[in-house]
Parts: sequence; structure tokens; C-alpha cells
Amino acid sequence: MPPSGDAPSAIEHTLRVIGDRWSILIVRAALRGIRRFDDFCEDLGIARPILTERLRRLVRNGVMIKVPYQDHPVRYEYRLTDAGIALSPVLVALVRWSEEHAPGATTPTALVHAPCGTELEQAFWCRRCRTTFGPTAIRGVERRQVDGDSAADMPDAPAGH
Amino acid sequence: MPPSGDAPSAIEHTLRVIGDRWSILIVRAALRGIRRFDDFCEDLGIARPILTERLRRLVRNGVMIKVPYQDHPVRYEYRLTDAGIALSPVLVALVRWSEEHAPGATTPTALVHAPCGTELEQAFWCRRCRTTFGPTAIRGVERRQVDGDSAADMPDAPAGH
Repeated sequence: MPPSGDAPSAIEHTLRVIGDRWSILIVRAALRGIRRFDDFCEDLGIARPILTERLRRLVRNGVMIKVPYQDHPVRYEYRLTDAGIALSPVLVALVRWSEEHAPGATTPTALVHAPCGTELEQAFWCRRCRTTFGPTAIRGVERRQVDGDSAADMPDAPAGH
Repeated sequence: MPPSGDAPSAIEHTLRVIGDRWSILIVRAALRGIRRFDDFCEDLGIARPILTERLRRLVRNGVMIKVPYQDHPVRYEYRLTDAGIALSPVLVALVRWSEEHAPGATTPTALVHAPCGTELEQAFWCRRCRTTFGPTAIRGVERRQVDGDSAADMPDAPAGH
């Protein structure tokens, strides 16, 4: 099996962007629909200078954007970018694992499937078999062996084999 | 919406356990089936003293266990515990996001659905609706509103509403 190459540096970058508790909780709150400075403050119980610094960092790293929502006086809110929304599996997984395996309380808010209100779970998904599966059905292979199976080449319907 | 209470301390604990690039890559390699010290070394290109320290920390935090696989001379391998296997959604999500949004190369190994060899994806899953969904269908609610829907109370078959 080949060494993992440059992945450590990419992961290190990601941890710089999102690898502290407040950044994680801010993005998770944003996923729940929170957008304004005062609402983040109240929801998270975070000190204002820390929130200011973390929001600035999240904006600088392309995870959030700061947009005016009012002109007189001008006021801003913070929205997740596509890259920020793409963090949702990371954040949800981190918070869920923390709740189950780390000492400390569960969060008083839960993330649910909006249409029915059931608390969400996470699954691995195979778009070929159109099935969910757990970690025991994971295998590692060299990437070039799966290149022909990349998302761009994959039929959207089940391949039937 | 209530403040998030003690969640920060639980998340901080999780980040201490798993919030550095090498711990992430070691657990990800273990998920691919790697168990022995020399194999981790070769696969990850990690320095032996760093690997020694990280494995010790992962064992201390209950993510891996060290078990003898040979008696004469005694030799050990490292296996993920249930808590370690439960980290798989975190690790997979972190590595996937890094590959897509952080500067740096993709990893030369891919995680695939073992039965068919297709690279895995991650999804949110609703056990009531028996459907996968993306982050736009997430809503945040107070946890006591979903208490009656906890996994223990949920029928395994679709509830049909």
C-alpha cells in the first residue's frame, strides 16, 4: 500500500480552519440557521471577542461570508458558503461522537430531519448499490483502482451489479 | 433557543483525542485494516517516535487497544475499539473535506464500499422516513422535543407518516 502522500498537510489545513471547539460550534449553529452576531453569542454563550475572532477566521478561510442584511445603519450577518455547508458531515459526526464518547453533557439542541422532526443519523452511502452501510463494510484500495468509478462517470441509477 | 451548555468541553476532549493530523491518519489507516506498527510506519510515512506517542495516546483514550498477536517473541498489534470504529464518520468526513477544500494532494488510497468497490459517500439518514438527505434538510430543535423519538423508542420499520 502506498504512503498517504500529501494528505497530512491538507488535513492540517482543515484542522487550522475548523479544529477548535468554538469554530465547530459556530458552524454547527450556522447549520441550524443562526446568522447574526448577537444570536451566536446568546446561543453559544461565547465571549464576544472570541466570537469576533472566530467569525473573522471562518470568513478568511472561505467557510462563511459576511453580508449586509440592513442598510440604515448597515448591519451584517454571517452565512455558510458552499464549503461551509460541506463541513456539515464533519461537524455532525464530531458532535455526535463527543456526546457519546467524551465526558460531558449532551447538547440541548438536536439536529433533525426537517420534514419529520426525527433526529438525524449518519451513514455511509454507495451510489452504485443505492444502499447505506456501516464502517465494517469499508475497504481501502489504491485510488487509481477506483478512478473509473468516479462520481462523474457513475450512472445515477443503480448499476444492477 | 437555549445555549449549548457543556458541549464545548466534550468537543474539546474529542479534539484532544483526535484533533491532530497524525491521529486522524492513524485511525483512518486502522479503518483500512492496518494493525501493526511497521505497517502504520510504511503506510503513513510517519516517524517512529511520533507513531509511538500517538498510538499510546489513542490507547489511553480508549480509541485503540494493544493486543499480542504472537508469543515468541511477544509482538503487539493495534486494533480499533468500538469507540474507535465509531469515529469513522468523523475521519471520513474530515479527509473528504480536506481533499476537496484544502490545498494539497488527494490521498492515494480511497475508502470504498467493500462488496462493490465503489468509493463511499456520506449521507444523513432518517430512520423514520428511511431516506438519505443532504444538509439543506437539517433543522435544529430543542432536544426535549425529540426525546420521544430517541433510537430506543423508534420502530425499525418505516413509521409510514
